Amino acid sequence: MSKKISALKTIGLIGKYGDPQIAPIVARLIEFLQGRGLTVLLEQSTAEILALRHPHTRPLAAIGRDIDLAVVVGGDGTMLSAARNIAGFKVPMIGVNLGRLGFLTDIAADHMLEGLATILDGDFKTEERLLLAAEVVRDGQVVYSCNAFNDVVINKGALARLIEFETHVNGEFVNSTRADGVIVATPTGSTAYALSAGGPILHPTLPAMVLVPICPHTLSDRPIAVSSDSRIEIVMTSTSSQSAHVTFDGQANYSLHDRDRVRVQRAATPVILVHPSQRDHYEVLRAKLHWGEKF
Amino acid sequence: MSKKISALKTIGLIGKYGDPQIAPIVARLIEFLQGRGLTVLLEQSTAEILALRHPHTRPLAAIGRDIDLAVVVGGDGTMLSAARNIAGFKVPMIGVNLGRLGFLTDIAADHMLEGLATILDGDFKTEERLLLAAEVVRDGQVVYSCNAFNDVVINKGALARLIEFETHVNGEFVNSTRADGVIVATPTGSTAYALSAGGPILHPTLPAMVLVPICPHTLSDRPIAVSSDSRIEIVMTSTSSQSAHVTFDGQANYSLHDRDRVRVQRAATPVILVHPSQRDHYEVLRAKLHWGEKF
Amino acid sequence: MSKKISALKTIGLIGKYGDPQIAPIVARLIEFLQGRGLTVLLEQSTAEILALRHPHTRPLAAIGRDIDLAVVVGGDGTMLSAARNIAGFKVPMIGVNLGRLGFLTDIAADHMLEGLATILDGDFKTEERLLLAAEVVRDGQVVYSCNAFNDVVINKGALARLIEFETHVNGEFVNSTRADGVIVATPTGSTAYALSAGGPILHPTLPAMVLVPICPHTLSDRPIAVSSDSRIEIVMTSTSSQSAHVTFDGQANYSLHDRDRVRVQRAATPVILVHPSQRDHYEVLRAKLHWGEKF
Amino acid sequence: MSKKISALKTIGLIGKYGDPQIAPIVARLIEFLQGRGLTVLLEQSTAEILALRHPHTRPLAAIGRDIDLAVVVGGDGTMLSAARNIAGFKVPMIGVNLGRLGFLTDIAADHMLEGLATILDGDFKTEERLLLAAEVVRDGQVVYSCNAFNDVVINKGALARLIEFETHVNGEFVNSTRADGVIVATPTGSTAYALSAGGPILHPTLPAMVLVPICPHTLSDRPIAVSSDSRIEIVMTSTSSQSAHVTFDGQANYSLHDRDRVRVQRAATPVILVHPSQRDHYEVLRAKLHWGEKF
Repeated sequence: MSKKISALKTIGLIGKYGDPQIAPIVARLIEFLQGRGLTVLLEQSTAEILALRHPHTRPLAAIGRDIDLAVVVGGDGTMLSAARNIAGFKVPMIGVNLGRLGFLTDIAADHMLEGLATILDGDFKTEERLLLAAEVVRDGQVVYSCNAFNDVVINKGALARLIEFETHVNGEFVNSTRADGVIVATPTGSTAYALSAGGPILHPTLPAMVLVPICPHTLSDRPIAVSSDSRIEIVMTSTSSQSAHVTFDGQANYSLHDRDRVRVQRAATPVILVHPSQRDHYEVLRAKLHWGEKF
Repeated sequence: MSKKISALKTIGLIGKYGDPQIAPIVARLIEFLQGRGLTVLLEQSTAEILALRHPHTRPLAAIGRDIDLAVVVGGDGTMLSAARNIAGFKVPMIGVNLGRLGFLTDIAADHMLEGLATILDGDFKTEERLLLAAEVVRDGQVVYSCNAFNDVVINKGALARLIEFETHVNGEFVNSTRADGVIVATPTGSTAYALSAGGPILHPTLPAMVLVPICPHTLSDRPIAVSSDSRIEIVMTSTSSQSAHVTFDGQANYSLHDRDRVRVQRAATPVILVHPSQRDHYEVLRAKLHWGEKF
Repeated sequence: MSKKISALKTIGLIGKYGDPQIAPIVARLIEFLQGRGLTVLLEQSTAEILALRHPHTRPLAAIGRDIDLAVVVGGDGTMLSAARNIAGFKVPMIGVNLGRLGFLTDIAADHMLEGLATILDGDFKTEERLLLAAEVVRDGQVVYSCNAFNDVVINKGALARLIEFETHVNGEFVNSTRADGVIVATPTGSTAYALSAGGPILHPTLPAMVLVPICPHTLSDRPIAVSSDSRIEIVMTSTSSQSAHVTFDGQANYSLHDRDRVRVQRAATPVILVHPSQRDHYEVLRAKLHWGEKF
Repeated sequence: MSKKISALKTIGLIGKYGDPQIAPIVARLIEFLQGRGLTVLLEQSTAEILALRHPHTRPLAAIGRDIDLAVVVGGDGTMLSAARNIAGFKVPMIGVNLGRLGFLTDIAADHMLEGLATILDGDFKTEERLLLAAEVVRDGQVVYSCNAFNDVVINKGALARLIEFETHVNGEFVNSTRADGVIVATPTGSTAYALSAGGPILHPTLPAMVLVPICPHTLSDRPIAVSSDSRIEIVMTSTSSQSAHVTFDGQANYSLHDRDRVRVQRAATPVILVHPSQRDHYEVLRAKLHWGEKF
């Protein structure tokens, strides 16, 4: 990996959607990267909203094709969106946060130029993270598909009291559940919504996904972690008309009908994160979860 | 209470909304009650849906004015709806379930005539249960109000990721919460949705309500039980536009705006339940929650 | 209460057990209180360990008889111990903490003289808190009894895998449980061990106690809050020999045998806490539980 | 595997420790297996307690050396004990339960001869399960070591209020914890004690172990699942004298001192379970956890 990065020529810049305060940061990054002789491609909506005149732009869905590294400016939400779009191109990515520590954005904007310089000099580590590929099957047809880096969430409509569904893993029936919904989370997503719903923390490199029921009616319906090679299928079973939705990283969504099947499995390619070499995963957990330090 | 019931003259019959299978049960009840020389008032939509020709009907909202006892045929949901409507008239009520044990419906349809005869003969106990009165305040005006026997639930819209709100009790600021929502439950409601969300079981006679956050972002946001004399106020605080709703027993609902205040306190009158004298609250809990029996 | 405090003549001083660092604080308190013309009684072991020559000392168990107010220097543990011993004498108490905010110790040592002066001038509020009275009954005889301000905890021995017991409330059988143990907590204790075991937070003035199972085998065995007027009885039921203990505020303990009955109910007198009048209970919770502040 | 079983010559029989009611079952098994021309080795204490005269016995710790398959008669506890002892010899094992379904004992005693005949005829599947190897290090020396099939549990002594320890994974500091203890569980153990303490269910084949804090003081101390290749180290850190123990499958134990280090990692060999080919893991979960069946 080190070799690839030292050989990199083109850097993609992706900014937080619709947030003008990132303009000076992006401008500084462009200057810095061009100063190192690198070509910079700017994500299109980032360019538009920032009113940055830049010769090379690409839409988010296509930028991965032409870059060697993505630098993402924003919070974890921006990283999720970027990851879903560029992971398929096997492009490594690194996040610059705007001040608040993120689970995914390692570099603080205040020190970003030093941070990036170190990485461009070859002092970094990479990590492959599980990405999910989900699809909604209705009457035998795939009617929607979407990737997810954190989680695929099936949730009741706002006014529904609960939804009913069956869970199958690798074709085996697991159980029937009455609940507010269910979360299928990656290790990355295990510290997001799934944690609030009572799920465990999965180490980022564990080849697993976890199914976390949301407010289940049966109190022994507990989170289940299965192999990341599993094929998960959630079948909406209520015979009465109900309102349910599936959301992807909380950013994309689709309305579900009775008998719809939501299938989730590992995407063809992982997300490749670039980290400063001294980055400590547990230090991030301790800071974000207010864990005690050493006694 | 025994005296009042022995002196009762008019019985209200309230059936599960829109369920034709209760027709023969209601018919048998009318015959039985009239056979004992009692006057029967039939809830209006029950009469309509059952196509029962019956001279005396009243709308649900008004039937409480003219009856001495309500006999409710259906499940816990029917009891909730009936309770919200008749509690204000201080009318005691008893539930007949359609086969599945309920928390609130003590008498099985199969044995209902014996069960009711025993009660009409004066062998019963009554229990007062907390009823909640809630209102939504917008720009200083009450824009909606509703009672709740189980719970007042503030919940995010289907596609929202979370909502933000402040909780105040008796004018004191408790905390700010990012969560899927919050449940304000009575002891009766503590074994319903609040239990699925991680709340404690409150004994029915405990003068308390419990605030249960739903999937809170902060893991130390835990259920809080406060006196049933408390005035609870939930203030929707997000400055960004969001989608939130408040529901009452999962049966009535209202859309919330930013800055709306949802106020919850004890209703002026409690719900009065009539139970067979041998009814055992913990036996119901053991059966519904699959607790172990005596070793 | 204000009148009683303004009329108070004798102050008891109780220090953290065996901690010499409280010596200068206690010395300063003696001087301050005597300077206001008050008589000071020193708890005996506090006097001994501090090597303070002071004419008036009393053992902890007896000091309550002769004082009008107890000033307790230490942490929450010192308050628990003092409360169990002096509550029976209906003596109000106030805690001085050694630097770390406590749930029970309102006044920081750094500002204790101003804090006490304000209170002695009559600017304070008092609060009655539930105290538990517990006893162990073996073969029909009471073999041990103890009060508890936080909790009565029945726990497995270190090497036992679990214990089995039956719970009865007011003579009614609740359930049989296989678990590590069970906690009977007051509202005061609800933010201590019971919280770690999954119990709810009870407002200090709620007339309730809560039974919290510790790691129950049956996942639907959930915390139950009952009236503080309840008589709780835990019956140890395992037929095989097992090792179990009951502890009181984690400070006193007694070994249990099979068939032992642990009875818990409200003590004859409450604990009377004196607080600075501006003390905010929820502010303490927010600080101790790292809750979010206002958005 | 099928080939190996079809080629097997010597079967080990291991009975529930000290339980005379298994005598007729074991006698029937001996007759059945010898009737198929197989050699039977009897575990020594099983032979003694049953007073079975049998020419070939071996101690539990050694029986694995000379057998091709172990048939274990008892409950899950007997399986745990047998697994710790024979896994090192790579001997597959199958459990016969005495009437109550177990997570590990697939064959009911009532149908054991048919069940075993089917398996001996080659109709079965095998499954490798993670076994843990743990050791206690004191002053740089290993003072105790033991395997565990369910879990390694570090727990406070009966009268201690809590213990303090640091957790390290692969040499990286995770966090400091104040708690009743911590469970390091295998996927097999995830449905045992770890589940009662709030841990997730891990699928048996997931290459993971899970650290589950027991009643942690910090509410955000949540279960963490890590790779089964991880080296876990728990360091007892309290400076005050405290009482703590480590137990292995709840069956073996060792007292811990301050500064002791408990190291846990994957054992050199897994446990090899033989299952009837139609065995359905989720069916066992549904039955044991009272999950709902298909709607």
